[in-house]
Amino acid sequence: MNKQDLEKQFSFLGELDKEKFITRQTYLTDGIRKENDAEHAWHMAVMALILEQYSNEKIDLLRTISMILIHDVVEIDAGDTYAYDEQAKSTQTERELLASERLFEMLPKEQAEYFKNLWLEFEAQETPEAKFARTMDNIQPMMLNAMTNGKAWVEHSVHLHQILKRNQNTAKGSQILWQYAKEHFIDKNVENNKIIND
Amino acid sequence: MNKQDLEKQFSFLGELDKEKFITRQTYLTDGIRKENDAEHAWHMAVMALILEQYSNEKIDLLRTISMILIHDVVEIDAGDTYAYDEQAKSTQTERELLASERLFEMLPKEQAEYFKNLWLEFEAQETPEAKFARTMDNIQPMMLNAMTNGKAWVEHSVHLHQILKRNQNTAKGSQILWQYAKEHFIDKNVENNKIIND
Repeated sequence: MNKQDLEKQFSFLGELDKEKFITRQTYLTDGIRKENDAEHAWHMAVMALILEQYSNEKIDLLRTISMILIHDVVEIDAGDTYAYDEQAKSTQTERELLASERLFEMLPKEQAEYFKNLWLEFEAQETPEAKFARTMDNIQPMMLNAMTNGKAWVEHSVHLHQILKRNQNTAKGSQILWQYAKEHFIDKNVENNKIIND
Repeated sequence: MNKQDLEKQFSFLGELDKEKFITRQTYLTDGIRKENDAEHAWHMAVMALILEQYSNEKIDLLRTISMILIHDVVEIDAGDTYAYDEQAKSTQTERELLASERLFEMLPKEQAEYFKNLWLEFEAQETPEAKFARTMDNIQPMMLNAMTNGKAWVEHSVHLHQILKRNQNTAKGSQILWQYAKEHFIDKNVENNKIIND
């Protein structure tokens, strides 16, 4: 054991507690409390575990879940950027890159490199694992929005074209899951006027 | 695609949202809000990812993380049983077994069997993966308790012998991590009178 490595690893793991205080725009199924990043990452990870069979391409599930577990760590410094906040989105990449450096560099050198690269891989959305992880990232809040009668969509006056743009890559991870989500979560809420049809 | 399978899987995944409302006795690092089961499982899963090298035995990391992600699902029905509540602990096994049947059986047959067995494997603490997962389960709240100056220990007047009994299997997953946790999280809080020495 390298004692210094263990100190670094526990410093990083302690710091991660802060992810539980990063609030998203999605309501939990009580329709009252908003979800935080840690809950979101856990839910996405279980979704990947249960839904792997629907990936368009064969994936390394451990790599996919690892990516999911750490994909929002950068928001500890950079905050949550709401999917439909165009102004915040214009500075998102820069803020998150800085955050990824500070946070992952708390780890021993080799792990720091590994996790920074894993996060960059998630962001780039090019590998089968990153594509499937992104599908989970998009479908998880959509499921919760549908389960709360579109409350978050209504509050933000979200238009269908915004959702479709946001989800332009969701089918790249899984056509089957995108089709299911479109039909069960989106179309129904367009019919019910929770999503503005345009 | 079997459409009925997908319906079942999304019913299960929607139901899991309830895990975010199961509150534990551990305080988050703000010292105010208590952690919920979903946050705890996420934190444990990242810990396993970062600390795998210290496992006493070689482990299948995907299996370990899968186990961690679903280990508290049963508490959706059975509730959280506090580590030092002997009365609640006497009925815990029965309550959790019933819960595991209802919850995992929402999944398609093969997955239901797989996840019920994975949960039973975690509970039995016999395989290297289950032993390491349990080490994470014990060390994660200990780390948070230490980071909040032992607030939860003080509130419950926890004695050292109770912690040592609770942790009699922590070293079975990782002697190195148990040694680190004992020294940094427990011993320091005995010295500071946050844990009652006996």
